[in-house]
Amino acid sequence: MADREAGALSRRDLDLIDAYWRAANYLSVGQIYLLDNPLLREPLREEHIKPRLLGHWGTTPGLNFLYAHLNRQIKARELEAIYITGPGHGGPGLVANAYLEGTYTEVYPRIGRDEEGLRRLFRQFSFPGGIPSHVAPETPGSIHEGGELGYSVAHAYGAAFDNPNLLVACVVGDGEAETGPLAASWHSNKFLDPVRDGAVLPILHLNAFKIANPTVLARIPHEELEKLFEGYGYRPITVEITDPKDHDAAHQAMAAAFDDALDDIRAIQQSARSGPGAVEGGVVERPRWPMIILRSPKGWTGPPSVDGKRTEGNWRSHQVPLANLRENPAHLAQLEQWLASYRPAELFDEAGALIPELAQLPPRGAHRMSANPHANGGILLRDLDLPDFRDYAVDVKERGTTFTEATRVLGVFLRDVMKRNERSANFRVFGPDETASNRLGAVLEATGRTWLAGTEPDDDAALAPDGRVMEVLSEHMCQGWLEGYLLTGRHGFFSCYEAFIHIVDSMFNQHAKWLKTTREIPWRRPIASLNYLLTSHVWRQDHNGFSHQDPGFIDHVINKKAEIVRVYLPPDTNTLLSVGDHLLRSRHYVNVVVAGKQPTHNWLSMDEAVLHCTRGIGIWDWASTDEGAEPDAVLGCAGDIPTLEVLAACAILREAFPDLKLRVVNVVDLMRLQPDTEHPHGLSDREFDSLFTTDRPVVFAYHGYPWLIHRLTYRRTNHHNIHVRGYKEEGTTTTPFDMVMLNDLDRYHLVIDVIDRVPGLAVRGAHLRQAMIDARARARAYTREVGDDLPEVRDWVWPYN
Amino acid sequence: MADREAGALSRRDLDLIDAYWRAANYLSVGQIYLLDNPLLREPLREEHIKPRLLGHWGTTPGLNFLYAHLNRQIKARELEAIYITGPGHGGPGLVANAYLEGTYTEVYPRIGRDEEGLRRLFRQFSFPGGIPSHVAPETPGSIHEGGELGYSVAHAYGAAFDNPNLLVACVVGDGEAETGPLAASWHSNKFLDPVRDGAVLPILHLNAFKIANPTVLARIPHEELEKLFEGYGYRPITVEITDPKDHDAAHQAMAAAFDDALDDIRAIQQSARSGPGAVEGGVVERPRWPMIILRSPKGWTGPPSVDGKRTEGNWRSHQVPLANLRENPAHLAQLEQWLASYRPAELFDEAGALIPELAQLPPRGAHRMSANPHANGGILLRDLDLPDFRDYAVDVKERGTTFTEATRVLGVFLRDVMKRNERSANFRVFGPDETASNRLGAVLEATGRTWLAGTEPDDDAALAPDGRVMEVLSEHMCQGWLEGYLLTGRHGFFSCYEAFIHIVDSMFNQHAKWLKTTREIPWRRPIASLNYLLTSHVWRQDHNGFSHQDPGFIDHVINKKAEIVRVYLPPDTNTLLSVGDHLLRSRHYVNVVVAGKQPTHNWLSMDEAVLHCTRGIGIWDWASTDEGAEPDAVLGCAGDIPTLEVLAACAILREAFPDLKLRVVNVVDLMRLQPDTEHPHGLSDREFDSLFTTDRPVVFAYHGYPWLIHRLTYRRTNHHNIHVRGYKEEGTTTTPFDMVMLNDLDRYHLVIDVIDRVPGLAVRGAHLRQAMIDARARARAYTREVGDDLPEVRDWVWPYN
Repeated sequence: MADREAGALSRRDLDLIDAYWRAANYLSVGQIYLLDNPLLREPLREEHIKPRLLGHWGTTPGLNFLYAHLNRQIKARELEAIYITGPGHGGPGLVANAYLEGTYTEVYPRIGRDEEGLRRLFRQFSFPGGIPSHVAPETPGSIHEGGELGYSVAHAYGAAFDNPNLLVACVVGDGEAETGPLAASWHSNKFLDPVRDGAVLPILHLNAFKIANPTVLARIPHEELEKLFEGYGYRPITVEITDPKDHDAAHQAMAAAFDDALDDIRAIQQSARSGPGAVEGGVVERPRWPMIILRSPKGWTGPPSVDGKRTEGNWRSHQVPLANLRENPAHLAQLEQWLASYRPAELFDEAGALIPELAQLPPRGAHRMSANPHANGGILLRDLDLPDFRDYAVDVKERGTTFTEATRVLGVFLRDVMKRNERSANFRVFGPDETASNRLGAVLEATGRTWLAGTEPDDDAALAPDGRVMEVLSEHMCQGWLEGYLLTGRHGFFSCYEAFIHIVDSMFNQHAKWLKTTREIPWRRPIASLNYLLTSHVWRQDHNGFSHQDPGFIDHVINKKAEIVRVYLPPDTNTLLSVGDHLLRSRHYVNVVVAGKQPTHNWLSMDEAVLHCTRGIGIWDWASTDEGAEPDAVLGCAGDIPTLEVLAACAILREAFPDLKLRVVNVVDLMRLQPDTEHPHGLSDREFDSLFTTDRPVVFAYHGYPWLIHRLTYRRTNHHNIHVRGYKEEGTTTTPFDMVMLNDLDRYHLVIDVIDRVPGLAVRGAHLRQAMIDARARARAYTREVGDDLPEVRDWVWPYN
Repeated sequence: MADREAGALSRRDLDLIDAYWRAANYLSVGQIYLLDNPLLREPLREEHIKPRLLGHWGTTPGLNFLYAHLNRQIKARELEAIYITGPGHGGPGLVANAYLEGTYTEVYPRIGRDEEGLRRLFRQFSFPGGIPSHVAPETPGSIHEGGELGYSVAHAYGAAFDNPNLLVACVVGDGEAETGPLAASWHSNKFLDPVRDGAVLPILHLNAFKIANPTVLARIPHEELEKLFEGYGYRPITVEITDPKDHDAAHQAMAAAFDDALDDIRAIQQSARSGPGAVEGGVVERPRWPMIILRSPKGWTGPPSVDGKRTEGNWRSHQVPLANLRENPAHLAQLEQWLASYRPAELFDEAGALIPELAQLPPRGAHRMSANPHANGGILLRDLDLPDFRDYAVDVKERGTTFTEATRVLGVFLRDVMKRNERSANFRVFGPDETASNRLGAVLEATGRTWLAGTEPDDDAALAPDGRVMEVLSEHMCQGWLEGYLLTGRHGFFSCYEAFIHIVDSMFNQHAKWLKTTREIPWRRPIASLNYLLTSHVWRQDHNGFSHQDPGFIDHVINKKAEIVRVYLPPDTNTLLSVGDHLLRSRHYVNVVVAGKQPTHNWLSMDEAVLHCTRGIGIWDWASTDEGAEPDAVLGCAGDIPTLEVLAACAILREAFPDLKLRVVNVVDLMRLQPDTEHPHGLSDREFDSLFTTDRPVVFAYHGYPWLIHRLTYRRTNHHNIHVRGYKEEGTTTTPFDMVMLNDLDRYHLVIDVIDRVPGLAVRGAHLRQAMIDARARARAYTREVGDDLPEVRDWVWPYN
């Protein structure tokens, strides 16, 4: 640890930074405990105390300590910086700092910089009608709520990408550091380009305890810990607080560590940006970026012990160290003493405003971490320059007779989006090693795969430090990077195997909650939508088998607020293009698109596709035989494979019963099925009835778990006639058509479903029904004999052109 | 690398092990490609080739190489070992080895050890009606399918816990190593007791490529990689295959590495078990366990190049290196050459059986990794010795007037389960640092928290190397350990914050799929159920706020097969005890229990609780006023908080309208709501109608997202009268009652719902309706003023005793 005399900070620096830290700590404790008497101008009484004590003290003083020191560096070095709070439950600290910097009052004028403002600041925290206990969207400067642990480092890197002048300080709690996503995220340094991207400064905060247990990283030998981070590719700089009372030593050590780290970052960036590496066409060596390890006592500066039990430096300070204050006068006295230890009278003036010396300490304007526009990315968001997606259309002269890999065509569109926005540097594509596998490989004609680890002569040429295709075999990292990228005002696109997107279910939850909350915060601006393309989907995981078959992400997604969530199931290539264009224009949603990567029948011309996608749902007249009259049966479909099977069934039925009035309804925008009272895209009952009738049988082939369609339509007039086929968790390694047969979604079964449901068809259709049963048996037998699908199924084309 | 001359293997050893490896590789390639001509006894023709080529070659030769060397060690050291295949898509390799060991023919007699057996072995792989492409449940010796990457190390440790004589060899692919769960799982070594537990030998297999990209760990400097693993607490032993053609050198190096690692493991175990550490009452120093890093070419021994492009040692060998064989005679010839390179005629005799020299090479009987009973845990499963849960009952003299923390009482039961089964060493409790927070702390009276990292004097005394409470702040690790523990024939219990169980959504998926598939495999025996207790649930996350509120795991779970999934919502303490007992007796399910940890009203005596839980659903006569007649309205409830609100609403309605015939139906077993055609626990329509009527209004208060109840009941006669309240994604940091009000689940709103739905009540109830609106406003205002719930709400008790 740096010697106090030899340190970087003068006596006056030390006094000021310590006073600032005390102010932040005082405001933090005040928020947790006080309803009133915010400046301790009268003896603390029980009515000044909140009836329910909610909040987390343990991590907060460390967060405040780091924040104060970062402020000093920002001023000294004129940095642009944001602060990611991994231990997001340390909310009081971040609110305190935003208040000290004046940002809080700017965005919430009722929280003034006077005694009444302090009273309101304290009262509102974790209080009904007030603000959440975490570093929530309501907290200026936050892009990371930190409630669900594990994503701080990924968010930090996401924020730093394409922001060459940004420093992202990222505090990682040692609890969070035990999570999987975080343990992997340290490797993000292999994906950060020192030329083009900003810097991430991870700060591992070893508080040593979680709720009840010690933490793993605090309890391995320090040498092991340093090796771990050297192994992750960092240069660790350790600050250890050995004497919690010796603030001078603590400040000197922290200042020295930040000086070291930030000097190093500057040197790395200068060398990469102006050194010989930069000259040689972007061949950049991966730097060993610095990171800081801070060992400090949990609940530092709080009560050393409570009721005879050690509290400072112990897990007991995790939440509220002093409880039952209303019943326990000794605790009340101890709280008063604790608050007084920060000497508020020296920090705030008569009116309750921060004294000028301290008010001048933090940076100004947008240099304040609480006011940095990157932490309110909507402010910085620029529209993408998009080519006309119609130019990428496949020509559909005859319906259902040509085949295209829909995602491959989309890849060409994305390639040109990438090219057009290269200079803006605000678009990236993410995926777990699957961009090419998902047939989006054309993107690699416009940019590389981001890669700063080693390369070898035989590698794919696309690996490049400044690539904009982010691939790592971690859905968590892809999602975390993308979230960080979007939250700081950029655009992105995430493609993933459908089954494995469940890996980030909980991350989606948190992002959707963030979007929902920020819609309601006036000073937050809308950001670009989070766009998922789920491909390699359930019906075409015949080769990888059962573990790769799960279409349930849609079910998961639609539990979140209707104003946030959109789900699209384009049935062919042109519709996927239209949807893809929409995704990149939309704001503040989570868009889920499911589309296969295998060759698929082309059904709609581009003009038709645009119209169909605009409506989101519609009757396909060219396939239907009801000619505007009330149909005998409706065939509904959503998803590329269900659409194929419905149309094949339709062709069989048309041939067998030329007089049967069939109506084919295709759904692109799944939320159209919901009532308009439930979802902004929902159809009115009248519209729904006009498509699905009020009393005719509906056989509906759906991409995913069939009950989802019931969930969406249970309030509709004709719901009791809707019969849904979908994935019912039957599958293995087999052929594509066997997959649909295993789940009764196949054309033959759909024909049987119609025969069984249309009044009067039982007798007329008896022969066809048996033929369908035979066809299934024949298909099954052929597949098991030959190992492939029946040619008549595999090569089927729409016969009515 | 060990010198060939100086190596541990004699010339004969080298020849034999290489021949065995060739045999495994030959069988692997045969499975991927061949329909017929399994021994190449005639020239290879296109009709011998499968029409669809599915499978993954790249990882397979490395898996086979390791397997052969492990076999040698098992025999030499008389080890009990299992083999976890992280790269599970290397299925052909594991099937090949099970076949070579004879196990395959034992469990699948139609796959004989002759030419016809080989033909069938090859044909069935990834073939309709055959076996999956992964190391699926169908593969003898597997407890790890490996399709979704990230869980191999956690599974391995789970298998090793409480199996002191077991060696778990765990191959980790360098793709998988990029995932979050895997990156965290290396720290499992801080939770493995060398005295009581077995050993895990992780083998990081650096194949250098994923589907398309290089892997991170293969492309950082070797020194960095070694530091990483030293930082994780291991002693890495590296084997690098520098010349893929020099098999002798490769075998010598591998043999030496295994000798080193296994000598070390033996020494660690002997020292811990008989050394001074063992004497001093279980104070065990954490060993630096060995691990192996194998750098070998992807697709080793496969075609060096195809169409002029490098294939061996490149990502191009990931799946099927040679494609389009039916159209490309050159590829067909190259395949024939490749197969012939293994010299099958030297490996298999005239009849197609493995030659005796090789057949004698692997271990015998249960020493074969493919036949180790730990990999078919149901064989080893013993019932838990359970105390009578009725002995833990809370006394309920008057209903709804006393309060108990349900999970705290369950904790006492679990404590005694722990005690009674200590000697059997087959029960553990898992949770992410929340066992005490979730009020299950009594368990710690019976055992410690597993911990082999450092301790300090102020630590909780419960930390112990041989604890059976597994806590780490990673839901992934908890789940992975527990799965490994269950799959090897033991019992467990996982408690988790409700919102954050979504972190393991995808892991649940994979386990549920495993259970579904193994039900259909005759030689697999049922294992203990995977038991989740979800507490700190949505309605009592008033303090942590919106990010901690998500009751959607139930929605996720019930997409899986009905025969696997059970969901329980016990409304009070005695019902939780009854459910808890049931969980620990059940087999081969995933049980999800949702129950709060806060003090809850006690409604049922133990006898009533047992009866109610046995039925799973029932009318609460004591709360109802219909006296067996057709009610005016049914009040349904599922979950502790919804039950409370329904009963409070019921009390208001009874007082206001003494003549109103109300029926209260409580649901413990959620699957009872489904039709019996959909779920084995489902009620028949007649039973359902007898509870919910065919035409009366039903107001249903549900714990989670309301549409789930619609999804379960949409086929019921009275469905159109069922009106559901639940969590609609509204919440923040506030009070418990404010939480229910924000979502319209509160008693006052339920009363309004009844008034609005019972014919004729609109007029009579107009006054009460307004009073309810006023009560909501009053409660809201009080909460915002005082920061707590109205005392009349907070302290409400059931008034009808």
